[in-house]
Amino acid sequence: MVDRVQAASAPANRSWWGWGSTDKALPDTECAALGALVPGAAAEPLPVPELRAVELPKSRVAPPPALAPLLSDAPADRAGHTYGKAYRDIVRALHGDLSPAPDQVAFPRTEQDITDVLDWAADAGVAVVPYGAGSSVVGGVEYRADRHRGVVSLDLSGLDRVLEIDRVSRAARIQAGALGPHLEAQLRPHGLTLRHFPQSFEFSTLGGWLATRAGGHYATLYTHVDDLVESMRVLTPVGVNESLRLPRSGAGPSPDRLFLGSEGTLGVITEAWMRLQDRPCHKASATVSFDSFPAAIDAVRAIAQSGLHPANCRLLDPGEAALAGVARGGESVLVLGLESAYAPVGDRLAELVTLACDHGGSPTREGSDAGADTAAGTWRSAFLRMPYLRDALARMSVISETFETACTWDRAGELYEAVRGRLGEVARRVAGAEAMINCRFTHVYPDGPAPYFTVIVPGRRGHEVAMWDEIKQASMDVLGDLGATVTHHHAVGRDHRPGYDRQRPEPFAHALRAAKQALDPAGILNPGVLIDPPAA
Amino acid sequence: MVDRVQAASAPANRSWWGWGSTDKALPDTECAALGALVPGAAAEPLPVPELRAVELPKSRVAPPPALAPLLSDAPADRAGHTYGKAYRDIVRALHGDLSPAPDQVAFPRTEQDITDVLDWAADAGVAVVPYGAGSSVVGGVEYRADRHRGVVSLDLSGLDRVLEIDRVSRAARIQAGALGPHLEAQLRPHGLTLRHFPQSFEFSTLGGWLATRAGGHYATLYTHVDDLVESMRVLTPVGVNESLRLPRSGAGPSPDRLFLGSEGTLGVITEAWMRLQDRPCHKASATVSFDSFPAAIDAVRAIAQSGLHPANCRLLDPGEAALAGVARGGESVLVLGLESAYAPVGDRLAELVTLACDHGGSPTREGSDAGADTAAGTWRSAFLRMPYLRDALARMSVISETFETACTWDRAGELYEAVRGRLGEVARRVAGAEAMINCRFTHVYPDGPAPYFTVIVPGRRGHEVAMWDEIKQASMDVLGDLGATVTHHHAVGRDHRPGYDRQRPEPFAHALRAAKQALDPAGILNPGVLIDPPAA
Repeated sequence: MVDRVQAASAPANRSWWGWGSTDKALPDTECAALGALVPGAAAEPLPVPELRAVELPKSRVAPPPALAPLLSDAPADRAGHTYGKAYRDIVRALHGDLSPAPDQVAFPRTEQDITDVLDWAADAGVAVVPYGAGSSVVGGVEYRADRHRGVVSLDLSGLDRVLEIDRVSRAARIQAGALGPHLEAQLRPHGLTLRHFPQSFEFSTLGGWLATRAGGHYATLYTHVDDLVESMRVLTPVGVNESLRLPRSGAGPSPDRLFLGSEGTLGVITEAWMRLQDRPCHKASATVSFDSFPAAIDAVRAIAQSGLHPANCRLLDPGEAALAGVARGGESVLVLGLESAYAPVGDRLAELVTLACDHGGSPTREGSDAGADTAAGTWRSAFLRMPYLRDALARMSVISETFETACTWDRAGELYEAVRGRLGEVARRVAGAEAMINCRFTHVYPDGPAPYFTVIVPGRRGHEVAMWDEIKQASMDVLGDLGATVTHHHAVGRDHRPGYDRQRPEPFAHALRAAKQALDPAGILNPGVLIDPPAA
Repeated sequence: MVDRVQAASAPANRSWWGWGSTDKALPDTECAALGALVPGAAAEPLPVPELRAVELPKSRVAPPPALAPLLSDAPADRAGHTYGKAYRDIVRALHGDLSPAPDQVAFPRTEQDITDVLDWAADAGVAVVPYGAGSSVVGGVEYRADRHRGVVSLDLSGLDRVLEIDRVSRAARIQAGALGPHLEAQLRPHGLTLRHFPQSFEFSTLGGWLATRAGGHYATLYTHVDDLVESMRVLTPVGVNESLRLPRSGAGPSPDRLFLGSEGTLGVITEAWMRLQDRPCHKASATVSFDSFPAAIDAVRAIAQSGLHPANCRLLDPGEAALAGVARGGESVLVLGLESAYAPVGDRLAELVTLACDHGGSPTREGSDAGADTAAGTWRSAFLRMPYLRDALARMSVISETFETACTWDRAGELYEAVRGRLGEVARRVAGAEAMINCRFTHVYPDGPAPYFTVIVPGRRGHEVAMWDEIKQASMDVLGDLGATVTHHHAVGRDHRPGYDRQRPEPFAHALRAAKQALDPAGILNPGVLIDPPAA
């Protein structure tokens, strides 16, 4: 019933300071050209420092002999595991600040290796930061506490295989360290796919997705990786937590739901049985433009409440549409997509377009099963390019902040206006300039959308982090004031702690602290994320 | 944006010993006629005892003066709150055994009333058993521990109103004590519906559904009430836990998911914002029969994996189909249904029927938007009548056990055979008779079904509970051996504890105990359900 799969890892050539692959970073001339589009940007790009010229703090932790083969304090390893990929991480790396570098980086190949590292760390009072591929944009993998003897970054990339496939139930047991493309490559020969495509897909892992409740490309239904989990295996300091493979259970609070979103604070996710799909052979997409953004919101709401479940339903506001090159005249653009492994989807796409037009939209162009729509394709390319552009802007000392949220439909319009108003004010105060503030709805639900905001404003070289922090705080304030979540799918990490602490019900905080104490009594797992230990 | 709704409660006339309304219980002659169909059943029905003739233990708890107006030790109140509605509850009541009766029944009208009861109970060492409408079939509302000074049943029926409606987001704030019909009646004038229809719909409450992760009538997608929750308000002994109204959040482990399925052990759910739907105006149903049950399983799997998302997809095995009167010649019957508030569903129904026929099915009859299919309608009537028939069988000393589970598709056929084999053996040993063992799939997922089993076997008068307990234990054993869940939607309560303790990962048990200790330090909330306190 179940097949065994063999696979080998093929990690990509990663940038130590910025997003993704080194060969896709923008060269200096393109950075300068991009900066020229932002009034107030620096004239010259910050140089990318040579790694050998960057000063790392001395490692405070010597590995015990038994673990020495797993641990590395090589500068390249420590530098590459110091930060995630938030704007403030990129800027600090560019300025040569690697002060929070881990003392050691562990590269386990087996679960026993992980257990050994956890046992040693608990005894030695060393913090352990689980690390998938380091794409966190919320400070999820950067140690900022000060009560441990040292810090080990636990890199899961050595556990990257699809171990079993159950074709009948369409599920696979997959190790947590598998990167998106490597995971899909192992499923492809079986005609199966996980189809979880976050923007970070190439540079993030299954375990990272699970630990942070990552959002994929599906705009409706299976929006988060949470919904694709059949069971999980988590190594906690007090033992292995393995749930049954079940399509659904009603037996008490869901064990998996405690670990989904636990962000490395309760245990190390080592593998999961994931629900798969047949590879879709029917696809269609269309774009619809709107003269009025409020009308576009109403259209998207009608679609979200229709039960038609589009796979893609991205609404770009006028600024976002213009930036992505899919609109010119100030209109909003809705990108719709459907996919199915079972039957053609053209009729359902036509229904969606009709619904959008009933609410004031004008069809731009429809794609059929034969190929993707031009505007949709243009937008997708821009989407994957965005983090590289963000890095280029960082080199021009332009501050870029993205944040995402969710709220109910009754507050969606108000939230859109409030965010733009408040962050515009803050940008003027902090940077003395007008910010570009764009928004797209990335996921939609019957009761509300998930808006994603981008804020771009010129910074002052050397002050980027402090300026970014003020903008970040303002974004959390305005979301909190309106009762919107501090994060829809980027996670909490350390950067979102103030907003999370405000949002989280206090009795639940008690319960979570108690659970943490029960599972991680030495308090070594990703300290500072989600919760703090009880005050001494 | 949000309307205020006024409503008044209208509780039904409930049976103190059996299911539902007293006027729907089968009269003696019909009980006897039903019993005559089961070889080995008693000749005469057990009489229904007069409530005034039943002996209740003396109440050990005197209410403090301040709470006296909320508390009752009237025999009818205590008797009606002694048990849920499991077979073993019905039989004990019929035999006049009300020994676990609560000492007091509290009828709060406000949250402050509940807080006052919790505060007093914690100080006094009195256990509190939250009580919705008492339809638990797993011992969820029956106190069985012995370490408290007494027991109060906390009846939430006084909090039964829809408090707010957000028409734009299609959501409503609803008090936890609202019974299904009363809740829907308050939504109907707004053209909205929750559409959560468990078999217990008439006699269960929103709070009970949430606390037990109840399953509704939807066979796919929104199968459990969990999926319809926008936010919850829970009174814990250490404070109010209220989550934000959000369509979705990725901020840490979900607070609501800790309380969903907590079965009254962590707090008292007082209200929730629930996701609603427009009332469906398009419906269609069809039935398909299969000569082979394995072929029928394959057909249902193909449907579950097709992405067509039928609202109803119930597969009845030959015994179940015959019992429901929708088949005669040993065939299996698949009942399919679709519903939509947006567009006609006939085309999608045709696709589903085609898919079923591709796997060996023969269409029996299709219903259109104009009306329900006859077989589907027949089965629905039988479905709602089943608990009354179960009570009639109990009066004839026929043992009836129902249990439900879920497993992945690769094990579905094996599970079906194993359950029938093992329980057949146990029935022969325990009752010396052949059991009738039927099965239906009530809910289906891309990776597996939720099978629901019914076991009927003649009992020996006066020994029904012990015989039932043996059958129950065997059912938990076989599910555990095959890695299936001990419950898909009936909850754990006290009756499923052995199976649940086996199924639940041990680190999660640590975490749950720690959370319980943090939220309910006095250990008064529904003791014995889900978890025990740490050994002293």
